[in-house]
Amino acid sequence: MLDKKYLSVEEAVELILKNINFRCLQPETVPIELAYGRVTYEDIIAPEDLPGFNRCTVDGFAVKSSDTFGAKETSPRYLTLKGEIPMGEPPCFSITSGETAAISTGGMLPEGADAVVMLEHVNVVSKDLVEILKAVSPGENIIFKDEDIKKGEIVISAGHRLKPHDIGALAGLGIKEIRVVKKPTVSIILTGDEIIPHTYPAMPGKVRDINSFILEGVLIHSGASALKMGIVKDDYHEIKGLVNKAFEISDIVIITGGTSAGIRDLTAKIIDEIGTPGVLFHGVSIKPGKPIIGGVCSGKPVFGLPGHPVAVYICFELFVKPAIEKMLGLSDKNFKKTVKAILTRSISSQPGRQDFIRVYLEKKEEKILATPLLSKSGLIMSLVKADGILRIPASLLGFEEGEEITVEIID
Amino acid sequence: MLDKKYLSVEEAVELILKNINFRCLQPETVPIELAYGRVTYEDIIAPEDLPGFNRCTVDGFAVKSSDTFGAKETSPRYLTLKGEIPMGEPPCFSITSGETAAISTGGMLPEGADAVVMLEHVNVVSKDLVEILKAVSPGENIIFKDEDIKKGEIVISAGHRLKPHDIGALAGLGIKEIRVVKKPTVSIILTGDEIIPHTYPAMPGKVRDINSFILEGVLIHSGASALKMGIVKDDYHEIKGLVNKAFEISDIVIITGGTSAGIRDLTAKIIDEIGTPGVLFHGVSIKPGKPIIGGVCSGKPVFGLPGHPVAVYICFELFVKPAIEKMLGLSDKNFKKTVKAILTRSISSQPGRQDFIRVYLEKKEEKILATPLLSKSGLIMSLVKADGILRIPASLLGFEEGEEITVEIID
Repeated sequence: MLDKKYLSVEEAVELILKNINFRCLQPETVPIELAYGRVTYEDIIAPEDLPGFNRCTVDGFAVKSSDTFGAKETSPRYLTLKGEIPMGEPPCFSITSGETAAISTGGMLPEGADAVVMLEHVNVVSKDLVEILKAVSPGENIIFKDEDIKKGEIVISAGHRLKPHDIGALAGLGIKEIRVVKKPTVSIILTGDEIIPHTYPAMPGKVRDINSFILEGVLIHSGASALKMGIVKDDYHEIKGLVNKAFEISDIVIITGGTSAGIRDLTAKIIDEIGTPGVLFHGVSIKPGKPIIGGVCSGKPVFGLPGHPVAVYICFELFVKPAIEKMLGLSDKNFKKTVKAILTRSISSQPGRQDFIRVYLEKKEEKILATPLLSKSGLIMSLVKADGILRIPASLLGFEEGEEITVEIID
Repeated sequence: MLDKKYLSVEEAVELILKNINFRCLQPETVPIELAYGRVTYEDIIAPEDLPGFNRCTVDGFAVKSSDTFGAKETSPRYLTLKGEIPMGEPPCFSITSGETAAISTGGMLPEGADAVVMLEHVNVVSKDLVEILKAVSPGENIIFKDEDIKKGEIVISAGHRLKPHDIGALAGLGIKEIRVVKKPTVSIILTGDEIIPHTYPAMPGKVRDINSFILEGVLIHSGASALKMGIVKDDYHEIKGLVNKAFEISDIVIITGGTSAGIRDLTAKIIDEIGTPGVLFHGVSIKPGKPIIGGVCSGKPVFGLPGHPVAVYICFELFVKPAIEKMLGLSDKNFKKTVKAILTRSISSQPGRQDFIRVYLEKKEEKILATPLLSKSGLIMSLVKADGILRIPASLLGFEEGEEITVEIID
């Protein structure tokens, strides 16, 4: 049975992305210490060369390389030892042909030197004479002044999520603050007469809020800020009031709950009333998560996620995350964290629908085994126990026991 | 040429781990909102059942399943419609054989019902009579009161790094705070007459601190707190004073710099003087990072990392991270983030040494190509430009152009 009236994941994502602008969030200036994981707003240009001077990479003797040509154990070259370069200081002398200077790893080469002979290839004959036992070529054992980074080059491009060593490179260049894209604020509205805060005691007929905790975690992980707007009853005016407020103060709005058809229609109606184009799709050929509503109101994405925790997680990854990444202007290569595993039992799927199966992974000898966690979709424990997600493409009917599959690791 | 006097990575890691205790850090109690990414100190036991009542998973009619047996379109069963279950409230009536009640997704089943017939398989004949067009089995379309989580079961084990849906499960159970392992405080001491803070202007012979920024980032990522102790001259008394202070106020000490042999020996001497067993190894068969010093003083790991930024990163991943994970008591399965790629040029390595090659990845048609970034090891840009690390095991002489390799993605 094909889900004919529903969009595919790809169609739905494309519709959302088409209606929001790349890097539409504002820039903000932050000190580099606070820039880990943030996304660059613009290319960062090197203000100077790094290391800024010709720098020695070994312990040894700075030389004019031409003075060492032909040197070997059986036929050493003799050079006048002019002194020692103090670490962290510019040399107070230069060297000319026939001269050398002792230098440590990290030291600054004296004027006239273009290479360093390693300590183990030198004999110190007297306090002012050394034997060079090995030839070096120009540039050997040194880093040239602009060899790591050249003044004016792009060190880090716009749209890059900053890793620890990126921040290290900025520090090395003396860059104290940079412009990053503001984190999108994502409002979370929970609807449902049955939802109570997690601080409430158990009550018959009520369930505590699970979804805002899942969403807050995945939002932080995606580089967004979560704004919990609270729980609202299944009532048109109450929901609309809170959704209106959320649109005023945030960049993306997530409404969860409304698992029953009537409430879903209410959510869709409210989204259509807030702004254009409004609802872009209502239902996608996936399991779990089929009743998802996606829309954009005046450039701000809005999602109506089904209330089941597993569906919330899957829908976030499929639809909300790409929207956040486009708004941030993220242009990094994206390598999903996956492992190859052997399926321990066959699993079937409806054609025309993408299925997302939670799997448990275990290492057995050299192999990784993946066991599907089959359970009713509302169960949070099927996600807690899962190590990864197996995606069954819409074109397949499932996978066979023993088949090698690719599992996306849950972070 | 075999590096005979140096340990292998595995031997060095084992030595460190053998000398520190599993989960040696203290517990602390945090609200679940602040527990994302933290590591559980103890098993977390469910204080109650979840959902806590038999819950409906579809929109439909609650029934005694035995009343529906044999029902089909051509031979419906007729039931008395007793009323509608309000969402979020306990039903104010029970049902007996021959009766049914309208119920929405998420609603609480009335006493006497053991299944729900979906809306589309029911015809409402009048306000108190419905036709059931399809049989349901006991438990169909419901979640039993303890089906997701059973009171008394372990929801989350000790030593688990909490993911967003783990926090969701805790919220669902009404757990407001939990005991997690305290983050280890890791002191960072930078040594070197040539090192200046990143806020200083460029000066000949000096280089700005890069390493404390790399380390802070990877430490945060590993669940530790970084404590930057500042820059100290290459002087025995100055280094020893700061190292002593670091051991007093932190759980792990990292000393970077000392790339020249003399300073490395000084660092090793100081570590030996601080506590037992002191230095465990001095030099490991790896590139980059060979001069690394590893030790433990009175249960606290200490590392002397070479000053090159790339070596700092590699040594952190190989040696410091496993120590942090053992101290946290982390017992999660660890699936490295890797991709299979095709090597675009041959790369050789010394036998007996593990090499860590930075590679640039690009997608080309269906394949991923990995190009080694060959550069002098001191260059930070070789890390900034890299997408991943190719590990050449000590037993291999390298990899050939066109070979399929496994690349560890840099996060």
